[in-house]
Amino acid sequence: MTSFADITPTLERLAIEVPSWAYGNSGTRFKVFGTPGTPRTVEEKIADAATVHRFTGLAPAVALHIPWDLVDDWAALRRYAEDLGIALGTINSNTFQDDDYKLGALTHTDPKIRQKAVDHHFECIDVMDATGSRDLKIWLAEGSNYPGQADMRGRQDRLAESLQKIYDRIGDEQRLVLEYKFFEPAFYHTDVPDWGTSYVQVAALGERAMVCLDTGHHAPGTNIEFIVAQLLRLGKLGSFDFNSRFYADDDLIVGSADPFQLFRILVEVIRGGGLDADSDVALMLDQCHNIEKKIPGQIRSVLNVQEMTARALLLDREALTAAQESGDVLEAHEIFMDAFSTDVRGDLAAWRESRGLPAHPMKAFAASGYQDGIEAARVGGTQAGWS
Amino acid sequence: MTSFADITPTLERLAIEVPSWAYGNSGTRFKVFGTPGTPRTVEEKIADAATVHRFTGLAPAVALHIPWDLVDDWAALRRYAEDLGIALGTINSNTFQDDDYKLGALTHTDPKIRQKAVDHHFECIDVMDATGSRDLKIWLAEGSNYPGQADMRGRQDRLAESLQKIYDRIGDEQRLVLEYKFFEPAFYHTDVPDWGTSYVQVAALGERAMVCLDTGHHAPGTNIEFIVAQLLRLGKLGSFDFNSRFYADDDLIVGSADPFQLFRILVEVIRGGGLDADSDVALMLDQCHNIEKKIPGQIRSVLNVQEMTARALLLDREALTAAQESGDVLEAHEIFMDAFSTDVRGDLAAWRESRGLPAHPMKAFAASGYQDGIEAARVGGTQAGWS
Amino acid sequence: MTSFADITPTLERLAIEVPSWAYGNSGTRFKVFGTPGTPRTVEEKIADAATVHRFTGLAPAVALHIPWDLVDDWAALRRYAEDLGIALGTINSNTFQDDDYKLGALTHTDPKIRQKAVDHHFECIDVMDATGSRDLKIWLAEGSNYPGQADMRGRQDRLAESLQKIYDRIGDEQRLVLEYKFFEPAFYHTDVPDWGTSYVQVAALGERAMVCLDTGHHAPGTNIEFIVAQLLRLGKLGSFDFNSRFYADDDLIVGSADPFQLFRILVEVIRGGGLDADSDVALMLDQCHNIEKKIPGQIRSVLNVQEMTARALLLDREALTAAQESGDVLEAHEIFMDAFSTDVRGDLAAWRESRGLPAHPMKAFAASGYQDGIEAARVGGTQAGWS
Amino acid sequence: MTSFADITPTLERLAIEVPSWAYGNSGTRFKVFGTPGTPRTVEEKIADAATVHRFTGLAPAVALHIPWDLVDDWAALRRYAEDLGIALGTINSNTFQDDDYKLGALTHTDPKIRQKAVDHHFECIDVMDATGSRDLKIWLAEGSNYPGQADMRGRQDRLAESLQKIYDRIGDEQRLVLEYKFFEPAFYHTDVPDWGTSYVQVAALGERAMVCLDTGHHAPGTNIEFIVAQLLRLGKLGSFDFNSRFYADDDLIVGSADPFQLFRILVEVIRGGGLDADSDVALMLDQCHNIEKKIPGQIRSVLNVQEMTARALLLDREALTAAQESGDVLEAHEIFMDAFSTDVRGDLAAWRESRGLPAHPMKAFAASGYQDGIEAARVGGTQAGWS
Repeated sequence: MTSFADITPTLERLAIEVPSWAYGNSGTRFKVFGTPGTPRTVEEKIADAATVHRFTGLAPAVALHIPWDLVDDWAALRRYAEDLGIALGTINSNTFQDDDYKLGALTHTDPKIRQKAVDHHFECIDVMDATGSRDLKIWLAEGSNYPGQADMRGRQDRLAESLQKIYDRIGDEQRLVLEYKFFEPAFYHTDVPDWGTSYVQVAALGERAMVCLDTGHHAPGTNIEFIVAQLLRLGKLGSFDFNSRFYADDDLIVGSADPFQLFRILVEVIRGGGLDADSDVALMLDQCHNIEKKIPGQIRSVLNVQEMTARALLLDREALTAAQESGDVLEAHEIFMDAFSTDVRGDLAAWRESRGLPAHPMKAFAASGYQDGIEAARVGGTQAGWS
Repeated sequence: MTSFADITPTLERLAIEVPSWAYGNSGTRFKVFGTPGTPRTVEEKIADAATVHRFTGLAPAVALHIPWDLVDDWAALRRYAEDLGIALGTINSNTFQDDDYKLGALTHTDPKIRQKAVDHHFECIDVMDATGSRDLKIWLAEGSNYPGQADMRGRQDRLAESLQKIYDRIGDEQRLVLEYKFFEPAFYHTDVPDWGTSYVQVAALGERAMVCLDTGHHAPGTNIEFIVAQLLRLGKLGSFDFNSRFYADDDLIVGSADPFQLFRILVEVIRGGGLDADSDVALMLDQCHNIEKKIPGQIRSVLNVQEMTARALLLDREALTAAQESGDVLEAHEIFMDAFSTDVRGDLAAWRESRGLPAHPMKAFAASGYQDGIEAARVGGTQAGWS
Repeated sequence: MTSFADITPTLERLAIEVPSWAYGNSGTRFKVFGTPGTPRTVEEKIADAATVHRFTGLAPAVALHIPWDLVDDWAALRRYAEDLGIALGTINSNTFQDDDYKLGALTHTDPKIRQKAVDHHFECIDVMDATGSRDLKIWLAEGSNYPGQADMRGRQDRLAESLQKIYDRIGDEQRLVLEYKFFEPAFYHTDVPDWGTSYVQVAALGERAMVCLDTGHHAPGTNIEFIVAQLLRLGKLGSFDFNSRFYADDDLIVGSADPFQLFRILVEVIRGGGLDADSDVALMLDQCHNIEKKIPGQIRSVLNVQEMTARALLLDREALTAAQESGDVLEAHEIFMDAFSTDVRGDLAAWRESRGLPAHPMKAFAASGYQDGIEAARVGGTQAGWS
Repeated sequence: MTSFADITPTLERLAIEVPSWAYGNSGTRFKVFGTPGTPRTVEEKIADAATVHRFTGLAPAVALHIPWDLVDDWAALRRYAEDLGIALGTINSNTFQDDDYKLGALTHTDPKIRQKAVDHHFECIDVMDATGSRDLKIWLAEGSNYPGQADMRGRQDRLAESLQKIYDRIGDEQRLVLEYKFFEPAFYHTDVPDWGTSYVQVAALGERAMVCLDTGHHAPGTNIEFIVAQLLRLGKLGSFDFNSRFYADDDLIVGSADPFQLFRILVEVIRGGGLDADSDVALMLDQCHNIEKKIPGQIRSVLNVQEMTARALLLDREALTAAQESGDVLEAHEIFMDAFSTDVRGDLAAWRESRGLPAHPMKAFAASGYQDGIEAARVGGTQAGWS
C-alpha cells in the first residue's frame, strides 16, 4: 500500500499553468456579465494569477494570449511577473477574431490571408523569445458551418503547409502544440476536430510539434483517458487544457462535472510518465468563470487537480496489476475505486501547512482581503475580456 | 398517388414567421462578425423581413424581441410593417441579459428579482396588446453551472408560481408559449430542459399555455418527430422554432444539416393536423447567420421548409397505412422514402410563378439590388445585434 | 454538520430490490458467456439473491420476470424465499421475445396481438396476487427501426388503450410502473422513449400508475437528477432501475461509471422525500454481469448505492441552502462536493459490524465458500439466461 | 453542369461487397427472430448474395466470416460462387466468441491466448490463399467494462505486437484492414475506438495495412466525411463497412437514417479518388436485418449507395470550387444541395434496363418468386446466425 508520504515528492512537482484570460470576463454568446475587481491590464491579470500561486503553490506560470496580452516592453512584464513569483508561460495565438479570418486563417483559400495568419504566429514566436516561453499553442478555430461551404481536404493540405512555415521558425528549445476541438465556433466541420488529426499534422512536422488535449473538446462519451494513454505511448502528448463539461465545451471548473473522469485521466498521466521528473507534459487550465468569482474559481481548479492527482498516486499499482493479470475484473475495479474513494483533503491540508502554505487555500483567500482590495482599487478603465 | 396540384392548397397556407433578430449580427462567444447592410433600427429589420416575404410569399409576420425591439409608438410600427406587407408576430421576452438575472429570473430565490422578471413579461403583454400579437414566447435561459449551486426542485416550484402570474395576465385571445432547451447558457442544469418539463408547466396553467419546440434544443439522437407527434396528440404544440444543428444549439439554416429530419418532422406535423386550415401551430425560424448573408439566409430557410413540406404532403398515406398494417417494413419505408426522394424544385418554381412570385427567390433577390442598396444606405449608426 | 450517527436511521431503511435475471447469464448480441455456478432454476436465483442480502442487509426482495421465472406453485416459491430471508418483489412482464411481438405488442396494429399482450399482463397480475407483489413493471421494448415503418401517433393511442385495460385489472394495493427507454431494441423510434411520455401515459391512468426511471435509459448528457426531482415533485416517481453506463444502455454495475452522478441522483431522492419513512419509491437494480462474477457483482452494486446514499445524507443542507440563497456559487458547490468527497467506507464497515453484518461484504463473501459451493453443485442442466 | 450520361462510366465501376452473415438471422441481446427461408449453409448464403447481384449488378463479391463460414473444400466453394456469378471477397476474423477471449484476444495479458488469436488469423490467411481474397478484415471486439479492469496502455502495446505477427504473414497482394469501433461489446474502453488508433496501428505495420471505416462506429455527432477525407489524404482508407444508425451501432440499412450523410461521405470518397479506376478502396455492407426480409434489405442497401453515388457524381465541382474560393457560403452550399436534391431514380431505372438489369430491382425481386422458393425449400436444419 502506498502512503501519503510516498506520494509527496511527486505532488511537489505538480505545476498547473493558469491562463491570463481566466481573470477577465467571459460568458456565452447570450451575455458576458461583468464583475467588480476584474483586471483592466495584463499586469492586473498577472497579479491575480500570482495570487492563485501564492495561496496554493500550484500555479507557477501564467499563459498569455496574443494579441489580448500584447505589451510594448516584454522584459518589464517578465520582471513584473517574476517579482510576483510567477513565470510567463505558454503563448497562445489568435486567428479567430480578425475579420479576415471569418472563413479561415491557416487554411484559407487566399494565400494572403494564410500568410497573415502565419505572420501572426511569427509575432507570437517573437514574444516567446522575449518572455522565455517554451510553448506556442495553436488552437485552430477554423472550419465551416454548411456542407459544401468549404473543401475540407484542401484545407487540410493548406493547414499542413502553414504549420510547416510556423514550425520552421520556432527555436530549438521551443515547441509547437496543436489543439484539437470537436466543434465550435464552426458548426459543420472543424479543421482539427480530433486527436488523430492533430497527431498526423504534428507528426508530419517533427519532434518539437506536439498535441494539446483540452478535456472539453471531445464528442459525447469519448474515453479521454484512452487518448491520454495513446498520446503518451506515441510520445506526442504536449499539454493539457483542463476544464470540465456536461454537454459541449462548457469550460467549467476542472473536476466539477465528473471528478472520477479527472481521476482516470490522471491515472493514465502517471501510468505514462507524465508526472515523472523528466516529463515534458504541460498541465494548464483553460476555463471560463462566467458566473463565479474568478480567482477562487482558479484556486478551486488547481486544488481539484491536486486532489485527484493525490488519489491517483495512491493507487496500489502492484495489486492492480496482479488483479488485472489474474483476470479478476471485480478485484481490479475495486482496487481502482479504493484509490478514488480515499479522502485526501486532510492529508493535503496538513502537507500544505508543512510547506508554509495555507491549509485551506479557499478560506485563506476569502479571509485575505485580496478580493475586496481589487474591487475597491480596480474602478474605471475597461475590464479585460476576450478581446 | 398524390399529385403536386393536390397539395398546393395546403402549401398556400404555409406561413413561417421570421425573427427580427435574424437580420442583426450574431455570432459565437468567440466573435460576432459585422456585415455591411446590417439594420440599425427595428424598422430596418422589418424592412428586411418584408423583403423575405416579398420574394417568397412565405413569411407574412415578423417576431419581435423585447427589449431589443422596443419602440415608443407601437401603432406607428404596426402601420410601418403593414405598409410593407408584413404583420408583427410573436413577442419574445428576455430575462437573460440584465445583471439581476445572472443566477435566475422567474426562478430566482429573491422574490424581488422574480417580480422584476414577471413585470418584464407584463410589459411584453402590453406590447402584444399594442401590436395585436397572439403569442408571448418565453425562452427560459435559466439554470445553473455547478452541482449544488441551486436547488433545482425549489426553482421548479418558483417557476410554476411566476408563470401563473404571467398567464393570469394574458388576454383571452393570447397564448403563453414556453420553450424548452437542453443546455446553454447554463451548463449543468436548465430549468426547462425538455418537452416533458415544458408540458407539465403549461398543462398546470391552462388551455392557452402551450409548448414551443425549437428543433435545436434536444439531446444528441433525440427523435424530434416523436415529440411533435406526442405534443400534437396532447393538444399542446404551440409553436416551432426552426433551425438546424450538427452538435449543440448551432442555430444553422433549417434543413441544412439533416433535411431528412426536417421531412420527418413535417410528416408528423401534417399527420397531427398542424397544417390544417384550423391549426393553431405557429411555425417560426430562430437562427443565426453568423457567416452568411442574412436576408438570403432567411430566404433559403423558408424555402427549405416549403420544399420539405411539399415532399411530406406528397407522401402516399393510403399506401403507407396499408403497408404499415400489413407489417411490410421495407415497403412502408420505401413509400416513405419515395416521398422524400421526390425533387419538387421544378414544380415549386412553376407554382411560384403562377402566383406572381419569382420562380427562383434566391436568384431573384440576388438580382434585385436590394442587398447593394442597404449596404450603401446603412452606413453609420450601430448595427443591431443581441443587445 | 451532520454526523454519521445522524444518518444511520435513514441508512437502515435503505432497501434495494435485486433482479432474478442478474444471476443468470447475460451478454451482448455478439456473445453470452457462461459461467460456473450459474443458476438453472428460479429457486437457485432466489438463493443467490438471498445471499446478497445475507452479506449486506441491503437486498430484502427479489424481482421476478415472467415468463422466465414462471413456476407452478407460487405459494411454495414464496415460502422458499421467505425461508431464505427474502421477499418476492416486483413482477416484470415480457412482450419482446414472442414472435408475435416482432413489430409491437401493446401498440400493435393487430387487435389480437394487442389483446395477447394485455392478457400476458393479466397473467402477471395473477402472479402478483399469488406472490404478494405490489408492483407490475412494464418495460416496453416496442418501436420501429425505419422511418415510415410505423405510425408513431397511432401507436401512442393504442398504447394508452392497452395500458388502461391493464391498469383496470390491478388491485387497490398494487401499482403499474411504466419504464421509459431512449432506444434499443428498436433503433428508430421507441414507443416510450422519455420520462415525458411515460408521465403522460401514467397520468392518464390514475394514481396507482407511476413512472420507472432506469438510470441507463437516457440520451447522452441528460441531467438525470433533474428528472428525479421533477418526478418526485409531480408525485409520479414509482421506482428506479439502477445501473450505470458510459455509452448506451450498458447495464454496468451502478456507480461504476460515474459515482458522482449516482451521488447527485441520491441527493435529489432525499431532497424529494424518496428515502422518507413513508416513501413509496422503490429502488431496484437492473444490470448485466457479462464478464464479472454475478453475486459479488450484485453485492458491489448495493454497496455502491449504500455508500453514495451515506455521502448524500451527510450533505449539510442548512449550509447549502444558505449558500444557495446568498448566491455564492462556489461556496454552495463546495458544500456539495464536501459531502461527495467524504470517505464513508470506514464508518459503514463499523456500522455493519454493529448490526451483525460483515464489515467487508465483498471479502466476507469471497471467504465464505458460497461461490465454490455453487460451482461444484450446479453442474448439468441449463444455465438461466434471458429466455 | 454534369449530366447523367457523364457519370455512368463511374457508376459502372461501383461494386459493393455483401456480407454472408447479412443473410443469416441477427437481432439484439433481447431476441433474435427467425425468418422463413433463412440459409442453413454457407452455400445458401452465397446463393442469396448472388441473387442480390443478379437483380442489381452492384454486389459482385461476398465477404466471409471465419469460423461461421468455414468449409472443408474452399476450391469447391469458390467454384460454386463463381458459377452463381459472384466472387468470394474479404475474409473476416472472429476473436469474440471463444470463451478464451472473454477478457481479450490480441491484447490479452496471457501470451498463450494472444498466440491463439494470432493463429486464428493465420488460419484466415490460409483461407484467403484458397479463396483468392485480397483483404483480411480485423474487427477487434476487445476492451473492458470497468475502469481499472485492464491496463489500456499495455494492451495497446500487445496489440501492436500481435498485429505485426499477422501482418508479417499476409502475402504481397493481400492487405490487413483494421476496423475501429467506439464501443460495444466492451462498455468502458475499446482497444481500437477511433480512426486515430486504427491509423497509428496500421501505419506502424506497413503499406499493406489499412483502416476500415464502419459508418456506424463513431461517437454521436462525429463528422464522418471528414475522416473519409483525412484517411484518403493519408492513403490509408482501406475499406468501408456501410450501414446506418440513429443511436449506437444500430446496423440499419445504409442510407435509411441519414441519406444526406451518406451523400456527403460519397462526395468525399469521389473527391479523394475513392471511385477512380485505380482505387483500392473497398466498399462493403455490414448490416443487420433484424425485422425486415434479408435479401430485399440487401438489395435496398446497395441501391441506396448507388443512388447517393449518382447524386454525388452530379455535383458541379467546378462551380462549387468557384463559389468556395469566392467565399460565397450560401452559393457553395446551394450547389452542394442541388446535387443532393436531384431525383436520380428515373435515370437509374432507365440505365439499369439498358444494361439488362431490372429497372426496379426491389419490385423485380418481389415478383421473381425467389423468396417463396427459399421459404419452401429451406425447411429443417439450423438457420444461420452469428455463431
